[in-house]
Amino acid sequence: MELRDLMSSQGEWLRGEGPHSGVVISTRIRLARNIAGYPFLRRMNAEQRQEIEGEVRQAVDDLALFKSACYLQLDRASAIDRQFLMERRLISRELAAAEGERAVAFDRDETASVMVNEEDHLRLQTMRSGLGLEEAWRQANEIDDRLESRLSFAFSSRLGYLTACPTNVGTGLRVSVMLHLPALVITRQIEKVFQAIARMRLAVRGLYGEGTQALGDFYQISNQQTLGKSEAEILETVNLTVPRIIEYEEKAREALARESELFLEDRLWRAVGILRHARQMSSEEALSLLSAVRMGVNMGRVRGIDVPTINRLFVCSQPGHLQMRHGEELSAEQRDRARAEYISDALRQANPN
Amino acid sequence: MELRDLMSSQGEWLRGEGPHSGVVISTRIRLARNIAGYPFLRRMNAEQRQEIEGEVRQAVDDLALFKSACYLQLDRASAIDRQFLMERRLISRELAAAEGERAVAFDRDETASVMVNEEDHLRLQTMRSGLGLEEAWRQANEIDDRLESRLSFAFSSRLGYLTACPTNVGTGLRVSVMLHLPALVITRQIEKVFQAIARMRLAVRGLYGEGTQALGDFYQISNQQTLGKSEAEILETVNLTVPRIIEYEEKAREALARESELFLEDRLWRAVGILRHARQMSSEEALSLLSAVRMGVNMGRVRGIDVPTINRLFVCSQPGHLQMRHGEELSAEQRDRARAEYISDALRQANPN
Repeated sequence: MELRDLMSSQGEWLRGEGPHSGVVISTRIRLARNIAGYPFLRRMNAEQRQEIEGEVRQAVDDLALFKSACYLQLDRASAIDRQFLMERRLISRELAAAEGERAVAFDRDETASVMVNEEDHLRLQTMRSGLGLEEAWRQANEIDDRLESRLSFAFSSRLGYLTACPTNVGTGLRVSVMLHLPALVITRQIEKVFQAIARMRLAVRGLYGEGTQALGDFYQISNQQTLGKSEAEILETVNLTVPRIIEYEEKAREALARESELFLEDRLWRAVGILRHARQMSSEEALSLLSAVRMGVNMGRVRGIDVPTINRLFVCSQPGHLQMRHGEELSAEQRDRARAEYISDALRQANPN
Repeated sequence: MELRDLMSSQGEWLRGEGPHSGVVISTRIRLARNIAGYPFLRRMNAEQRQEIEGEVRQAVDDLALFKSACYLQLDRASAIDRQFLMERRLISRELAAAEGERAVAFDRDETASVMVNEEDHLRLQTMRSGLGLEEAWRQANEIDDRLESRLSFAFSSRLGYLTACPTNVGTGLRVSVMLHLPALVITRQIEKVFQAIARMRLAVRGLYGEGTQALGDFYQISNQQTLGKSEAEILETVNLTVPRIIEYEEKAREALARESELFLEDRLWRAVGILRHARQMSSEEALSLLSAVRMGVNMGRVRGIDVPTINRLFVCSQPGHLQMRHGEELSAEQRDRARAEYISDALRQANPN
């Protein structure tokens, strides 16, 4: 499989379907694992990294899920390829930027990936479009079991799974849900929601994880604690909180439609107008305008374009995807031009009205 | 003639034709006159105002130019009608807002108007689309002569025509040229041009005269001095200065096209996109966006729409015109909505591409 083959879709996480997909972009389960008998990544030498890489590759190759999948050694991949994988959320920002022997395996549908030599020896993640905690958890659990039957994971009967960072010790589990909350932002209720989330001991992050900004009104909600809690407890906390946030966002959208219809319509259609006609556009502006259009489509106010198309624009207008499409490195100005052209062409074809 | 009949056109001043109409919107000649034997306006009582009004009406009625024209007593006109006339530049902002017996006469083509009981007893003005100093002056001079054969104007052989404000004493002449200077604004050369204009002892004003802001990159250049100068000298100063400003603006447009093509195209097309899609728009924003589109059309970069259409949008999207069209008073919010709808419909029909 060639990376370029992925260009025609937006990947599982932005498929734009699944339960509550009007507000919930995607659900992600991540498990951190390390192989017994080796030091953690920071203390490994090049040879040990290679050994880990070889062991994991063998184990992954054995799994049916990854049979017709992609296994990529990232230290040999181009910067564009790594950015492309990061934008599709198949690898983390950190793994894309790291150095040394490291790799990723993912299945053709992009529902699961295994990162090798990220912060831990293995980072297994599963993704679902919309709210799909159970399904994502079931798949992650199954892959974890199968890998564990081939690899010996570092585990303490007292602490649980051992990880490079103490915050992951125990289950090694992080549950994240990516939410699209434009109406809570517009109506200035988002801070109140963040406070409620913090009281549940959940964390809020931006589009591409820790330390990234909340672009395009996208927010990731995830658990902070893993030690001393069972997987079921962690899933339960997220499962209880997310539906309440969905409800807040939906109420805010209804209030906007009821009390500020002209303001709302104006905002949605200006976004359509600019996306259709601009000749250069930054990534941040594109995310922000597409966010408004996405809300308009989900509210039934912008017709002739569907959420999967908008989601494709979200991911395909990012730098790595633009450069992959053009088959070469582009300067920031060239990217801004290519981005405006790509989005404008897509919107003319879709013809929202 | 009904005022509503004027709605289908934009008036002479925004006809969008005439010499140098890419940069010069219009030329205006104004003469201030007072009738001998009466005090200036501020010291007149209601009876005297009425007498003046009667005398001028009679004199105007005798002129062939005003035969099938409009004579309107402004103290009996509605606020919308007065604003409408002001937006078409047939009356001044001051006359629209004043109180007491006052009137205006103007011909069907809106090339000439006579304001009665403005700051002076009579304010005669002639307008030409584009740069047309000689033609406007010839017409003003002719109307002035004909009125003078019927009315006795206050005149001193030492000072010339006597006027309410000392700055108008002498010729009572103000020559103004309305310029559209978007490229000088974008390239930040406008202040330099203002300084050059000031050195020629000319004044720079905004769209609707003294004290108004330079909206939509429109600037009025006019003479400040009238005492101690002949009409020919005043016309000559303006006639020498304006072509140089036109040249600056044209060079700035060429430089933009050459050095910042992407920036320029982006700016023009974003303006088209917002004008086409917005659902509410202030008068200021409309002027600013239409200004960009006008420049794009004049530079041959926006096709499928002509300058007269854009000029019609300029004037017809103003509050008085919008309310005249709707046949009733509109709140600010209603106007913003009506304006966006009016412009968007017009641009969809014209289909610029």
